[in-house]
Amino acid sequence: VVESSVFQIAGYKNSGKTTLVQGVIRELQKQSYTAVTIKHHGHGGKPDVIDDKDSSLHIGAGAMASLAEGDGSILLQADNLDWPLERLIQLMSVFVPDIILIEGYKQERYPKAVIARDLEEAQKLSCLENVHAVITPLLPEEARSYFGPIPVWPFSEGAEKLAAYIASIHKFV
Amino acid sequence: VVESSVFQIAGYKNSGKTTLVQGVIRELQKQSYTAVTIKHHGHGGKPDVIDDKDSSLHIGAGAMASLAEGDGSILLQADNLDWPLERLIQLMSVFVPDIILIEGYKQERYPKAVIARDLEEAQKLSCLENVHAVITPLLPEEARSYFGPIPVWPFSEGAEKLAAYIASIHKFV
Repeated sequence: VVESSVFQIAGYKNSGKTTLVQGVIRELQKQSYTAVTIKHHGHGGKPDVIDDKDSSLHIGAGAMASLAEGDGSILLQADNLDWPLERLIQLMSVFVPDIILIEGYKQERYPKAVIARDLEEAQKLSCLENVHAVITPLLPEEARSYFGPIPVWPFSEGAEKLAAYIASIHKFV
Repeated sequence: VVESSVFQIAGYKNSGKTTLVQGVIRELQKQSYTAVTIKHHGHGGKPDVIDDKDSSLHIGAGAMASLAEGDGSILLQADNLDWPLERLIQLMSVFVPDIILIEGYKQERYPKAVIARDLEEAQKLSCLENVHAVITPLLPEEARSYFGPIPVWPFSEGAEKLAAYIASIHKFV
């Protein structure tokens, strides 16, 4: 059994993380890798839910979590949790994906690519742990002055190159 | 480690399953038991999701499942799955609840209570596997003529009695 590989995509607000995640998933899918995603809800607060549905009624009554299944789709809601990322990864591992792709959680220690829009962001993001690649409009030599000798890709090639990189890591787990 | 106990509440459409589930969760909570729920999405079709959100974008790009976390709440969506109930139970077990309460899935084999609104429903529901209790407006002797010597409770007492019964099963697992 090959375990799921965990990989993060980090960057500041509105830097294009979701677009990159979507692109990486599409590229992985072309190569028949399965992926699940975990993300911090954007801009703070709780993820939106549909409050009048039965799942919300269950949670309103005190259930820790509620799952609704229909027609091959599932929707799971939980509230008042204080779970570390490890626990969310454990939950998503039940899907037995090849890749668990994490958008955000930049302070976490998993292998990651960062999106650096300028030198200032590059400098700050270079302090994160385990940065394996940089997607940036900066010149490779500018980016490498902060990050050292790691792959540097422009936005136009980011998704494809990153998916290939993540797939190569997965194979060697 | 005590394992989670799985218990079902089954009955026909609009028989009051969700209300009973809510009542049972509230009673369990009073006794400090934790519960999660699993239900078939009512009236067929997929559970409603909010399509313009990032999770849906991830799934649209081909992710098997997507989890958004914010402020202690999580929302997990997945599509195009064909999971048996066992797999959904495995997913919800990650929450390590005392009780996994299942609304619906009446053909499954887990211990269950049924809601029988009349003799005809009682007769049909008595063919299900592993019926431990009946919530019904029928007289106990009428219900027992189909179900044999099991507890029969009116709607007014159903939630409280059923929660106590489920808790007693959980202790003896």
